[in-house]
Amino acid sequence: MKKFIAEFIGTLWLVFGGCGSAILAAAFPELGIGFVGVSLAFGLTVVTMAYAIGHISGCHLNPAVSIGLAVAGRFDKKELFPYIISQLMGAIAGAALIYIVASGKAGFELGGFAANGFGEHSPGGYNMVSAFVIELVLTFVFLFVILGATHSKAPANMAGLSIGLALALIHLISIPVTNTSVNPARSTSQALFADGSWAIPQLWLFWVAPILGAILAGVVYSLLSPEKEQGA
Amino acid sequence: MKKFIAEFIGTLWLVFGGCGSAILAAAFPELGIGFVGVSLAFGLTVVTMAYAIGHISGCHLNPAVSIGLAVAGRFDKKELFPYIISQLMGAIAGAALIYIVASGKAGFELGGFAANGFGEHSPGGYNMVSAFVIELVLTFVFLFVILGATHSKAPANMAGLSIGLALALIHLISIPVTNTSVNPARSTSQALFADGSWAIPQLWLFWVAPILGAILAGVVYSLLSPEKEQGA
Amino acid sequence: MKKFIAEFIGTLWLVFGGCGSAILAAAFPELGIGFVGVSLAFGLTVVTMAYAIGHISGCHLNPAVSIGLAVAGRFDKKELFPYIISQLMGAIAGAALIYIVASGKAGFELGGFAANGFGEHSPGGYNMVSAFVIELVLTFVFLFVILGATHSKAPANMAGLSIGLALALIHLISIPVTNTSVNPARSTSQALFADGSWAIPQLWLFWVAPILGAILAGVVYSLLSPEKEQGA
Amino acid sequence: MKKFIAEFIGTLWLVFGGCGSAILAAAFPELGIGFVGVSLAFGLTVVTMAYAIGHISGCHLNPAVSIGLAVAGRFDKKELFPYIISQLMGAIAGAALIYIVASGKAGFELGGFAANGFGEHSPGGYNMVSAFVIELVLTFVFLFVILGATHSKAPANMAGLSIGLALALIHLISIPVTNTSVNPARSTSQALFADGSWAIPQLWLFWVAPILGAILAGVVYSLLSPEKEQGA
Repeated sequence: MKKFIAEFIGTLWLVFGGCGSAILAAAFPELGIGFVGVSLAFGLTVVTMAYAIGHISGCHLNPAVSIGLAVAGRFDKKELFPYIISQLMGAIAGAALIYIVASGKAGFELGGFAANGFGEHSPGGYNMVSAFVIELVLTFVFLFVILGATHSKAPANMAGLSIGLALALIHLISIPVTNTSVNPARSTSQALFADGSWAIPQLWLFWVAPILGAILAGVVYSLLSPEKEQGA
Repeated sequence: MKKFIAEFIGTLWLVFGGCGSAILAAAFPELGIGFVGVSLAFGLTVVTMAYAIGHISGCHLNPAVSIGLAVAGRFDKKELFPYIISQLMGAIAGAALIYIVASGKAGFELGGFAANGFGEHSPGGYNMVSAFVIELVLTFVFLFVILGATHSKAPANMAGLSIGLALALIHLISIPVTNTSVNPARSTSQALFADGSWAIPQLWLFWVAPILGAILAGVVYSLLSPEKEQGA
Repeated sequence: MKKFIAEFIGTLWLVFGGCGSAILAAAFPELGIGFVGVSLAFGLTVVTMAYAIGHISGCHLNPAVSIGLAVAGRFDKKELFPYIISQLMGAIAGAALIYIVASGKAGFELGGFAANGFGEHSPGGYNMVSAFVIELVLTFVFLFVILGATHSKAPANMAGLSIGLALALIHLISIPVTNTSVNPARSTSQALFADGSWAIPQLWLFWVAPILGAILAGVVYSLLSPEKEQGA
Repeated sequence: MKKFIAEFIGTLWLVFGGCGSAILAAAFPELGIGFVGVSLAFGLTVVTMAYAIGHISGCHLNPAVSIGLAVAGRFDKKELFPYIISQLMGAIAGAALIYIVASGKAGFELGGFAANGFGEHSPGGYNMVSAFVIELVLTFVFLFVILGATHSKAPANMAGLSIGLALALIHLISIPVTNTSVNPARSTSQALFADGSWAIPQLWLFWVAPILGAILAGVVYSLLSPEKEQGA
């Protein structure tokens, strides 16, 4: 039960910090944090939670991460379902908190919130193929880094930092393409709040591409550098 | 006594570095550091002091942090009062130093200094509810990260880095809402110097919301992951 | 064989993340990541891969790095050729992936991709001498840092972080001069895709200067701080 | 002898990377790195060299640092003179390299190079008192952090990172005031190259204030947290 509460709070933080910084601070006139600031914010949600709850739940905060770890034999498949539910609930709670804060401003308009999209809903106007390819590739590398940095041969104390910085890097590359997902829970939480009818219909891509990328990474990394004792 | 001097110098640095960068460098024409730079500056004051005075005083630099740690049983309640006094004095000394430097410029106007505010004194015009919610949530997570990163099961050498980066992240999200407090000493030091009659009357929020968030985190984290030997 | 696959994936990531962020995100209107973001992206590709594949292949991702390590006696000269081939193939695959994503935008124009250049193809109009000097100096220091940070007397767990941050720093300095190479594989991958006839003819400089700098560093660092047991 | 070569190369890198990024990349149109990028560059020169030459020379790269460490009893006073000479020579060599690169651009004008100044030569127009106070305070804290982070009770592997980040933070605060020195070698190297007759006459401040701050920190930190075995 403690694991699930930890995943709930951690994913709440990922969404509140990452999507919240995008909604509240990215485009502030003159001084706004831009995509660099949003990228750092997403990355730092993971860095900070990794050291806070890593010893409780492993700090996945992302259904694709839980699935990729399970494929690689590093996470018990029986826990997949409650982890994913906890992550989804945390993400939605984080989005609700953003809504409460953001709506306390005169002239607030919901717009697309921080939803992910492609085609005309891609920040830079990239089509579905671009979106699918980049989400798949980035989630592949994200899991590849997670599996490597938490490997018994890597220095354990640096795992949280390098994994969080991987998420920052992923955002530096891809916000213009899809607003960056690599995390179905994050995407779902924003699509539920986004104004307009487009975000839910495009949501499938932000489940399918990240999960495919994660599964692929789980298979490839296990072949490249298996753990003797699987199941951590 | 050494502890109190360490907290004094550390909190002086937090205010001089964090609020100082905001006042001196954020809005410099063309090349200014913006909210990203100010966020990094606040975070790095904690990173740098954590390794400098962590072994002397624990490097709290913030009444809400001391209170949250006390609630979680990680800090001796008898030391709360002298710690908070040291932090307040350090913060005010830091603000005085900023004033000395900043006023040495032709055409200097004090304005709001780097005071925290809501309503018409929120940088982005957010109301009191938004301000209260975000300060409470962010201080909750800040203490949650502090309690986790300094837990005996977390890698000790990374605590200072992850806690400092948590403060950077907190600023990336919330400068537009309240100018970011999560620290009553920082808020008090700026309100005392700020030009105009609004900062002191709004100061209550930046004591109440952070301290509530910190207490809540102390309770929740202790339930989630208790330390066997409390009182560190 | 696992080493070569790791170098392939790692160099793919260096090019996809570093050059990809430059092409997709640097100049996004208003919110783009600029040279600061691109510099961080290049650096973080190395930080993240260092912890992911460091224990498999050493995470060179760069022919100049492999050569410099070989000169210093830290890498088996017999493996130079397959490492460099793997790096080149990975870099080209990364460039191809960028092309697939970037071309999925209406009005896409290839332009110079993220190719390196000098003279009229230097972002800031720097001539060949400036380009040669800076590439040589920066690769010298890059290898100097790599040889130092992976030295038996340096803390092993910080090597990946400091080496990656060295690459970020190198980009902060030199993107205006040559678009920053210090990596012949990265340069080759972009020259092959760049629109126009200039990038291939200028490619020689981005092989010669980095490799000279790397050899020089291998010699100097070995004299300054030899390893007792060479050949790691 | 190896120590002095290491200090020479390290200080060359501090000036080439820090001042070089300011001159070459800070004000690049649209995409330039601004003060945030220059601050990171200065900080990362120290982070990278700390892990490269820390075990050879201690990586001071700054006469004020050597003096502060000597005052605190952590550095042999007999080595002060050769260290400072090595640092000065390295800084000047770094400035010469910047000159070679920067002058290879059509229309290059030397201007103030990256010299430090006050009054009308302060980037933001701050007067001499502001300049003196901020250089003294910042060098005080810089040495305070150095003495703390290299203390036997602090985690040794984090010293280089936290000290480098302290230098980044110092720049985030103070570039508008003095262009940031805290390092007499860095200031001297730029004043020698700067166009115009003002930089040399103002150079005294960037020796006196940093060295006073460093001495003060050496005294205060030693009282606050003495090392049992001095002389490291």
